[in-house]
Amino acid sequence: MKKSYVKEITPRSENYSQWYSDVVLKAELMDYAPVKGCMAIRPYGYAIWEKLQERLDRRIKETGHQNAYFPLFIPQNLLQKEADHVAGFAPEVALVTKGGDEVLGEPLVIRPTSEAIICDFYSRWIQSWRDLPVLINQWCNVVRWEKSTRPFLRTSEFLWQEGHTCHRTSEEAEEEARKMLAVYKEFIETELAIPVLDGQKTEREKFAGALRTYTVEALMSDGRALQAGTSHNLGQHFARVFDITFLDRDDQLKHVWQTSWGVSTRLIGALIMVHGDDRGLIIPPRVAPTQVVVVPIISKKRRAEVLEAAKGVEAELSRQGIRVHLDDREEYSPGWKFNQWEMKGVPIRLELGPRDLDNRQVLLVRRHDDFREALPLHELAARLPRLLEEAQQSLFDKAKRFLEQNSYHCTDYQEFTGKVEEKRGLFLSPWCGDPECELRVKDDTRATIRCIPFDGPPAEGRCLVCDRPAKYQVYFGRSY
Amino acid sequence: MKKSYVKEITPRSENYSQWYSDVVLKAELMDYAPVKGCMAIRPYGYAIWEKLQERLDRRIKETGHQNAYFPLFIPQNLLQKEADHVAGFAPEVALVTKGGDEVLGEPLVIRPTSEAIICDFYSRWIQSWRDLPVLINQWCNVVRWEKSTRPFLRTSEFLWQEGHTCHRTSEEAEEEARKMLAVYKEFIETELAIPVLDGQKTEREKFAGALRTYTVEALMSDGRALQAGTSHNLGQHFARVFDITFLDRDDQLKHVWQTSWGVSTRLIGALIMVHGDDRGLIIPPRVAPTQVVVVPIISKKRRAEVLEAAKGVEAELSRQGIRVHLDDREEYSPGWKFNQWEMKGVPIRLELGPRDLDNRQVLLVRRHDDFREALPLHELAARLPRLLEEAQQSLFDKAKRFLEQNSYHCTDYQEFTGKVEEKRGLFLSPWCGDPECELRVKDDTRATIRCIPFDGPPAEGRCLVCDRPAKYQVYFGRSY
Repeated sequence: MKKSYVKEITPRSENYSQWYSDVVLKAELMDYAPVKGCMAIRPYGYAIWEKLQERLDRRIKETGHQNAYFPLFIPQNLLQKEADHVAGFAPEVALVTKGGDEVLGEPLVIRPTSEAIICDFYSRWIQSWRDLPVLINQWCNVVRWEKSTRPFLRTSEFLWQEGHTCHRTSEEAEEEARKMLAVYKEFIETELAIPVLDGQKTEREKFAGALRTYTVEALMSDGRALQAGTSHNLGQHFARVFDITFLDRDDQLKHVWQTSWGVSTRLIGALIMVHGDDRGLIIPPRVAPTQVVVVPIISKKRRAEVLEAAKGVEAELSRQGIRVHLDDREEYSPGWKFNQWEMKGVPIRLELGPRDLDNRQVLLVRRHDDFREALPLHELAARLPRLLEEAQQSLFDKAKRFLEQNSYHCTDYQEFTGKVEEKRGLFLSPWCGDPECELRVKDDTRATIRCIPFDGPPAEGRCLVCDRPAKYQVYFGRSY
Repeated sequence: MKKSYVKEITPRSENYSQWYSDVVLKAELMDYAPVKGCMAIRPYGYAIWEKLQERLDRRIKETGHQNAYFPLFIPQNLLQKEADHVAGFAPEVALVTKGGDEVLGEPLVIRPTSEAIICDFYSRWIQSWRDLPVLINQWCNVVRWEKSTRPFLRTSEFLWQEGHTCHRTSEEAEEEARKMLAVYKEFIETELAIPVLDGQKTEREKFAGALRTYTVEALMSDGRALQAGTSHNLGQHFARVFDITFLDRDDQLKHVWQTSWGVSTRLIGALIMVHGDDRGLIIPPRVAPTQVVVVPIISKKRRAEVLEAAKGVEAELSRQGIRVHLDDREEYSPGWKFNQWEMKGVPIRLELGPRDLDNRQVLLVRRHDDFREALPLHELAARLPRLLEEAQQSLFDKAKRFLEQNSYHCTDYQEFTGKVEEKRGLFLSPWCGDPECELRVKDDTRATIRCIPFDGPPAEGRCLVCDRPAKYQVYFGRSY
């Protein structure tokens, strides 16, 4: 009956990848599907996703976007219209070839992303400058047939939101792409307590079909980078091949300018790897499905009394708008519950036993820093919001320090290759802009250019690889 | 520039089906996809769906359920495990046979419903009575390869929620199935203002794999019935073939008892057909994305003044929690806007021009009954909530009257066949319980048994068809 969860989690220092797998399975965030590369998101994992959705959806709507839903199926010929796009996605699509008892004349692609199918609609919906801008987002599932998969980070099917917008001018599209990247940055830093670097992707790393791709990059606790969200200025690439035109104020027929942008369930992977420790998950309070768990220490004699007090605490915190859960299961011991809720990363635990009752207090234990305090019951409701806010801020600060401590300025290639191997982390280095040099770094070290940072230092010095004059300062890193 | 929307809607009396198509397209609820039987749900249609989701999701959580997400793909062998289930769904599934560059050894079915894939997970998640009940719901897309489709009512891909629960005892499962049907009835009647009949499906009409299916049935304004939601007691049918067992308190290994239940985007179709009229949609205020639209009547002279007043009205109503939209587009005339918002079914329109301003009033026009009143500006915020509530109630009452006026008690087969053809509607009639008689009615009249009502009159008299003693009083009707 008493299982020790914690013992079953591999320490990060021993095997980081196994630690990750242990956490996602044992905290019941997900389970592997009978289909390769697919997973079920279990209620606890999905509750985190619902919190992220709620917070991001609000921001998407506040910036003037509306949600809609487009078909799962894309006729193959539509996907093939934009040359770069098809080259990027064709190798990893799932194909439907039979429907009911008929073999399909043309196979249907299951959307790997929805530019193609949405552009087909937009070409019919947009006629005049009055119809612009079109600012639409959708929450949905997409499928990319991945060879090597990992829960939340890279799965054959995943959940995401994808925004798709059309504008009158190039400037408006650029402004939109940058605006939505800023929304992502603010959302991820505020709600997930994950600091990110923002910048532009190189030509090699940009989205298949985009003019320019902007990205926010986070650093995991093993020193590997993770692309947390991207926003693309699509230019007129899709508008031209899908013939999305409008009659402008000057009576000229013009092609629209487009953007697309998305974040996915991979953010849950980032949250695990940025904040988690050897005891399991640590969830930032703002997105924690349960912010406070109350564990009554039940003795035979004073069972009813303790339970009643615990219920009182639950009711009071709930009234305050705190997401509180009372774990009054009697088939599990308090110690087992402590471990389980720590592993599940609940920010604050309240213990309440007969002696606490006598002293009119509860014992508060904070997950991320083990801060403990006996709190008078009458102060609880007033103190908790602050303690939660502190936890949120402190998680962000800690992750920010880690990011700073694992970012290096590096101008020497030999030093670079050694350090990438030894320490991972992010390397701000001068680059000439030549994709050949970018590729050489990848071949030599498996590191890629994560971004050309928006607020990076001016280009100076010589390219890390070829010694020609540098055009950019870029962040290199190994990534997920 | 000025298009007349209303002229383009076919009157219901002329061609009901064309009226429906006109409304869904011209109110911009949806558009047809390049793939047969699929559609895009446009922002206005999706905003209705979001309202329904929000209201129903709250109820699903309040009754103790949690959301989760299960894979889109089901290995074919899983779908084939339960004999009735595969017989019901195999003819209408879409099959994935290629992923990336590999031809799949075993084709993957795109979920037509998720019992099979979820039972596969449950068989691993459930071990002890302590793990029960399992109360999980998911919001997702499903695919059924339909031959004959109609927007929202029957599409190859649609959105829905599906609850899947496991229980210790048969009684608990039965209680759950009935409870969730009651949740659907209350939700549909309260939020969508659609009265429904609740009851049980016959053996012929029940869900493929269920022990018993419960249903809520609504009556559309053309006299055809629509199944608005179903809840299934699955018994141990799936638990046995998927081997979902638990160690009970008495140390015996037992199979769980299950339920599943769902409603879909088809509810939007019901909403259109129950409340709509020849001018277009009528959306009940509780689920209306926009409850009040403010249309300023702008004259050249007093443009700024009128606009400012209109913005003031918008801000004030918005503060009250009313979903209000100010239509201040200057490229469309007020008359054009009136028509457009009527067609889109917005419950209340406020007109505000220079003369109204002089009189410190607005003209209020209510969509469903054309009620008009000049309201003093200072009374507006106080009066509107009541006027919206009245609209909600009055739509329900009207639909309820229609349901009653089009329900007939009928014991004579000849009278029945004539009336079904002539009037449609619902026919409460005695039935012996023999599927042969049920089938004969269907062959003769295209009417099916919609349900054996929960609170119907006692069985008496003789079967409508065969004249043997009746076992049930059932509702017959033609359906969507």
